[in-house]
Amino acid sequence: MSGTSWIAADWGTSNLRLWAMGADGAPISERRSDRGMGTLSPDEFEGAFLDIAGDLIGDGPCDVVICGMAGARQGWVEAAYATAPCAPTAATATHVPTRDTRLNVRILPGLCQMSPPDVMRGEETQIAGYLAGAPDFDGVICLPGTHSKWARVSGGMVQTFRTFMTGELFHLTATQSILRHSIGAGWDHDAFTDAVAQGFNAPGRVTTDLFSLRAASLLGRKDGASIRARLSGLLMGVELNGAQDLMTQGDVVLIGAPDLCEHYERAIRVIGGGAKCADATAMTLAGLIAAHDRLKEDQT
Amino acid sequence: MSGTSWIAADWGTSNLRLWAMGADGAPISERRSDRGMGTLSPDEFEGAFLDIAGDLIGDGPCDVVICGMAGARQGWVEAAYATAPCAPTAATATHVPTRDTRLNVRILPGLCQMSPPDVMRGEETQIAGYLAGAPDFDGVICLPGTHSKWARVSGGMVQTFRTFMTGELFHLTATQSILRHSIGAGWDHDAFTDAVAQGFNAPGRVTTDLFSLRAASLLGRKDGASIRARLSGLLMGVELNGAQDLMTQGDVVLIGAPDLCEHYERAIRVIGGGAKCADATAMTLAGLIAAHDRLKEDQT
Repeated sequence: MSGTSWIAADWGTSNLRLWAMGADGAPISERRSDRGMGTLSPDEFEGAFLDIAGDLIGDGPCDVVICGMAGARQGWVEAAYATAPCAPTAATATHVPTRDTRLNVRILPGLCQMSPPDVMRGEETQIAGYLAGAPDFDGVICLPGTHSKWARVSGGMVQTFRTFMTGELFHLTATQSILRHSIGAGWDHDAFTDAVAQGFNAPGRVTTDLFSLRAASLLGRKDGASIRARLSGLLMGVELNGAQDLMTQGDVVLIGAPDLCEHYERAIRVIGGGAKCADATAMTLAGLIAAHDRLKEDQT
Repeated sequence: MSGTSWIAADWGTSNLRLWAMGADGAPISERRSDRGMGTLSPDEFEGAFLDIAGDLIGDGPCDVVICGMAGARQGWVEAAYATAPCAPTAATATHVPTRDTRLNVRILPGLCQMSPPDVMRGEETQIAGYLAGAPDFDGVICLPGTHSKWARVSGGMVQTFRTFMTGELFHLTATQSILRHSIGAGWDHDAFTDAVAQGFNAPGRVTTDLFSLRAASLLGRKDGASIRARLSGLLMGVELNGAQDLMTQGDVVLIGAPDLCEHYERAIRVIGGGAKCADATAMTLAGLIAAHDRLKEDQT
């Protein structure tokens, strides 16, 4: 297949998503695979990439710009972190040696922070994508997920950021802890908002409030849908408490899965804030394009 | 074997421990088994009991007084909760029908609380054991464990109590979360006390402080022993924050496994409190004796 100018790829722990980009800077096609970093050893990445994208490359040479966990220590090749405060669009990227000489593969760095220690891989590219469309943005960007990220952004730079294990703790608690016996299907919006306020206002009680959900179930006082929503709300309320000093007057920009962003938006409203959602896939692609542009500049 | 006046038993989720009591009120012998409630279906309890204690009973009749999770809904027979505020020594117990007519088995109730919802099974008997030796006690008793209990006790009654999932969350996070890759063997006392203060002072940051341990490990800034101690300290600091309104001027009385009580004692000192440890096994036995005495009184 001809016409591919370069390939943009978001290679996370669980999935790979890539776009064949045309000479005009717009994507020609998009492909997805479940061969995420977590399923591959370092010497399997090139084959996995060619399996899904080989026919897009033609005779080459073909630039490939990758963000995400493919750059982790256990990934294809480790891409050193850039250290915040810094621009989220990398000035340099890590070149990946390939057997296929048509490929010019580079992996973008993640961001790290020394105090408090923190890291991200992939989310910085979504932030860069948002800034590509709003270069003067001054505020906070929240990227919900298994590990949600909150980044204070101004002057085109990530000034500071913080990761919360909320999603992972929700999953572990809902499926592995004593609470698993009390969690039901469904969702209770009022219970969720009530619990957000509770977690936000009294975060020190979170580990007893969690047990109290189990006790309420044993005593026949709460149903499974309510307990599921309360568990989520409590943990999200604690996150909002821990992130509040990053927040500014304006709306929080949410970049993530739509259903998760909707929960975060609701939670932020509970504590008196506002939020707006940006499309996560669009931000990733815009960030990869911005990175490719910047890498090209540096080559000229 | 003769001489057994009655049998005292602590039948928890994982273990069964029992004492053959002599006519003089002192234990003649003690036995343990790993056939805890969690391993048995309701119709297996009597057989499990006779396997370990059958030779102690003689011709009967033999009173058997049991505390703990054997009285849970999934246990031998469900023993309804007593509702706090109330004395921790049960006024009544649930009679268990047995095929073996020598046995007169009763299971002590746990305690429940409606607001905030909470429950305990077994710990109330340890509290009763402590009060048997200190009937005028006015203060707080903490029972560390998978689910630690804090009880405000005065006037011979449990006035209010609260359960924290600290131990279970430590275990889940250390073995199942992303932090499992960073946890090492060993222990770092200074890291522990530092993290206790951190969790106590800023509980809203706990879910980001946990991720920060992972990041510090990735960035080569903390070792596995330090991370293990910090994970424990953070969660314990949050617990102390949530329990602080139960605390009084005097020392916290700790009843639990000696090594765990030592960690709690150290943590309580970090936040400016004091603690003293009581022997958990002795408290359980004393509580079962107090319950047996009270049940006998009610029969006469």
